[in-house]
Amino acid sequence: MTGLEALGMGMASAATIPPPLRDGGRGKKIVVLGAGLAGLTAAYELQRAGYQVSIVEARSIAGGRCQTARRGFALTELGGITQRCRFDEGLYFNHGPWRIPYHHRSTLHYIKTFGIPVELVNNDNDASYIYSTRGKGRLASRPVRKMEIEADIRGRSAEILAKVVQAGSLDRTFDAADKELFLAYLEAEGYLTGVDRDYAGTSGRGWRVKPGAGLHPGAPSTPYGLLDILHSNAWKTLSSVPDWDSPRTMFQPVGGMDALAKAFVDRLPGQIHYETRVEKIRQSDKGVEVSLIDPTGARSMLAADWCVCTIPLSVLKTIDHGFAEPFAAAMNGASYHPVGKIGLQMKSRFWEEKDWLYGGHVYTDDDDISLISMPSHGWFSQKGILLGYYQGGGNAAKISALAPDQRTEMALAFGEKIFHDYRSSFETAISVAWHLVPYSLGGWAEWSDEARVRDYPKLLQPDRRIYLAGEHLSYLGGWQAGAIESAWMQIDALHKRASSDSL
Amino acid sequence: MTGLEALGMGMASAATIPPPLRDGGRGKKIVVLGAGLAGLTAAYELQRAGYQVSIVEARSIAGGRCQTARRGFALTELGGITQRCRFDEGLYFNHGPWRIPYHHRSTLHYIKTFGIPVELVNNDNDASYIYSTRGKGRLASRPVRKMEIEADIRGRSAEILAKVVQAGSLDRTFDAADKELFLAYLEAEGYLTGVDRDYAGTSGRGWRVKPGAGLHPGAPSTPYGLLDILHSNAWKTLSSVPDWDSPRTMFQPVGGMDALAKAFVDRLPGQIHYETRVEKIRQSDKGVEVSLIDPTGARSMLAADWCVCTIPLSVLKTIDHGFAEPFAAAMNGASYHPVGKIGLQMKSRFWEEKDWLYGGHVYTDDDDISLISMPSHGWFSQKGILLGYYQGGGNAAKISALAPDQRTEMALAFGEKIFHDYRSSFETAISVAWHLVPYSLGGWAEWSDEARVRDYPKLLQPDRRIYLAGEHLSYLGGWQAGAIESAWMQIDALHKRASSDSL
Repeated sequence: MTGLEALGMGMASAATIPPPLRDGGRGKKIVVLGAGLAGLTAAYELQRAGYQVSIVEARSIAGGRCQTARRGFALTELGGITQRCRFDEGLYFNHGPWRIPYHHRSTLHYIKTFGIPVELVNNDNDASYIYSTRGKGRLASRPVRKMEIEADIRGRSAEILAKVVQAGSLDRTFDAADKELFLAYLEAEGYLTGVDRDYAGTSGRGWRVKPGAGLHPGAPSTPYGLLDILHSNAWKTLSSVPDWDSPRTMFQPVGGMDALAKAFVDRLPGQIHYETRVEKIRQSDKGVEVSLIDPTGARSMLAADWCVCTIPLSVLKTIDHGFAEPFAAAMNGASYHPVGKIGLQMKSRFWEEKDWLYGGHVYTDDDDISLISMPSHGWFSQKGILLGYYQGGGNAAKISALAPDQRTEMALAFGEKIFHDYRSSFETAISVAWHLVPYSLGGWAEWSDEARVRDYPKLLQPDRRIYLAGEHLSYLGGWQAGAIESAWMQIDALHKRASSDSL
Repeated sequence: MTGLEALGMGMASAATIPPPLRDGGRGKKIVVLGAGLAGLTAAYELQRAGYQVSIVEARSIAGGRCQTARRGFALTELGGITQRCRFDEGLYFNHGPWRIPYHHRSTLHYIKTFGIPVELVNNDNDASYIYSTRGKGRLASRPVRKMEIEADIRGRSAEILAKVVQAGSLDRTFDAADKELFLAYLEAEGYLTGVDRDYAGTSGRGWRVKPGAGLHPGAPSTPYGLLDILHSNAWKTLSSVPDWDSPRTMFQPVGGMDALAKAFVDRLPGQIHYETRVEKIRQSDKGVEVSLIDPTGARSMLAADWCVCTIPLSVLKTIDHGFAEPFAAAMNGASYHPVGKIGLQMKSRFWEEKDWLYGGHVYTDDDDISLISMPSHGWFSQKGILLGYYQGGGNAAKISALAPDQRTEMALAFGEKIFHDYRSSFETAISVAWHLVPYSLGGWAEWSDEARVRDYPKLLQPDRRIYLAGEHLSYLGGWQAGAIESAWMQIDALHKRASSDSL
């Protein structure tokens, strides 16, 4: 084991650097379909290795789902409604990917390589609210600070367990010395006090009267009862440690996530054919031919030795791709996750000024909302963009059927239950339903356990001269790291074959 | 209760905005002794209210303990050794205050008012290491990631408690429905699985093989045993929720903490007499006279109607202050905390590249070190400054007796146990022992419970026309907020008296 493995970060697998494309591409032609992060990664690395790369992109911008909404940005969903972003200059909203976990080495490789300034995302703010709509009792259907719930349910549980241990119920589990150590742990973890190890609250849950200057030592707050917390469901947001996918240490590019896509684009000058749709793909033993339709409706043909196709399966299925069976059938194994997000411009940062919330999320079990997130940038400035909801699945499908104004109204009606100024401060919104966004048709690919076994492995193999890549071909579904690492894996395979071809 | 109180942030006491100084100062003269944050706050607010303010500062810079070390910064301790900072241009180290909790509204009031750019401090990084020197067993005397300990000891405790509950031992505490809720909580909190609710690890503690692209679903890591953790002492860093004083959401000014002091200075042009020591203070019924010694050794006298004295008690005691008893005696009630910090310039950010640590602290029970902290700025850049130790009390006194090079050696000898590149990457250091720094003579004031009752309240009252202010006159000892809020409290009292005087 290397030091890092010994230290618990696990053996490599998630790739941390691009594959070395030894001996280079020697001018061979590659066509990359899709200028999302998988396509951009493949194109950038293949070009560096000496391949001649063209990229075809249906949108007028690169980045795929890596988008940032700013003033003037337009978003048209299936059904034809176009929303135009009316945020004030300087404000923005990452309606696609918005956070980079510290362990996504692949994404961070390009952040570092391209010198993209990043800042921390406050991804778990203890001061933030839990708003439980399905719970009961005095802590349900009202905002409760997460730190109160953390302190109290852990404190009360530690107290119960300490009393059980003190009573000797676990004397067969522990010897006397270990028993004392375990009690000391429970005391520290739960802020237990006195000989009976009672939980009586702690400063970290907040004060009744805060300590200050002069004669103000502070007055402790009163903890909630265990049953009040249990009945409220507020405990459902807690876990011993955050999930791997949602660590507390996360980054975002300063100024918007699309900085990452733009940095790739800057390094692929003139190589991206924008607003160009793929009509048909055909292959021979020698190469790949892609039939294209440009913005004027004119058709053309692009020929290459190899193709990296990063079009989401949801979209690729609708194209005349000419793939052989069972490859083509395997594409049906993935379903694309409906995902909705809304950005709400607020004319004051009331969540900072009045609620003392700097980043983090309001957690709710109202699945039409799921999260309200406070921005982790623009601290102490005048205005800001809140994430007003972030639903998935059936809830996202339901909300996406609403007109944009109705979506906004739904978000405001919920948010004002928590924040007094939510509605009065609101100025303008932009919402996205990724399953309705042309050329994406979903937030990300989801694979059932069966399809992971039956279909997924087939798509990791090329169909003749075409290699698929994207977050859908990874176990990092929905993450930019999945797209990048999938591209790395596939260009490595492509390059090895192309190299042996030419010998 | 207001909304905020109802939401658990406690009633006001810690002040959030400066006192309104109604009807103004009408040109009355104030002398402020000390240009630390208390003095700067008092001077700035009194000046805004129309007082004529002069500030006397012994150092050549304002800010008091609010300092930032950069290339060229010089620090002389008692004993006469001068360290000159040799950091590369652009690198810096906050050897005084370094973090602003989100609930320090007073400090953040000026951050916002002055438009000082701030960024998040990652004050609790789950990926960071615990290095326990006094524990035993396989997890002692080696770095262990905090997230592993969090997941495992909480998971194992939840498992034990769930089994106790399942066995019916708490059936008198819970009815059947509540028992199920409590079990559901333990299951969620501890990532318990199966009908027996066992703890078998969780992704948040790290992977044995990480998930990635292609055929890499990831392989789970193996949790530690409860006794291994208990014996290691690593659990001592855990608590249900962070203490009030050390929340996970904290800020730092971009570029160095002294930005706060500088912003005050910019608003007090020409009013600070630098390098000017107070030799003697005398009062009459009409005013205050302060005898000064300027940098050339020349003596002068400054007369004012009122005085705000923010000189630390440790230093004030050594001045001929002329205070009446029992006021003078009360100053002996505070002891000043020895505090040591060292900044180590490293030529590579190995902690980011190799250990994937972005901010946060290495926690250790070696009290000569206490913390190693990774900077929360300069992400992905080449070099960085680590906080190599942050001791207090007897350990700080002991380490401060070492010459600067020996302090550095002590820090390196410890750090290299954790980080392979710690010594080879080291370039230059600057260390501070605040108890040896002239005009500070301590990190902050500490009051015993007895002295808080006996002495502290006396110093909150003026001695005739002199009002004391500083972190030492607050329950926010050692924090900039304590200095600011103390100043607010005292200028409010001074102003009320000065206003009634003139009627």
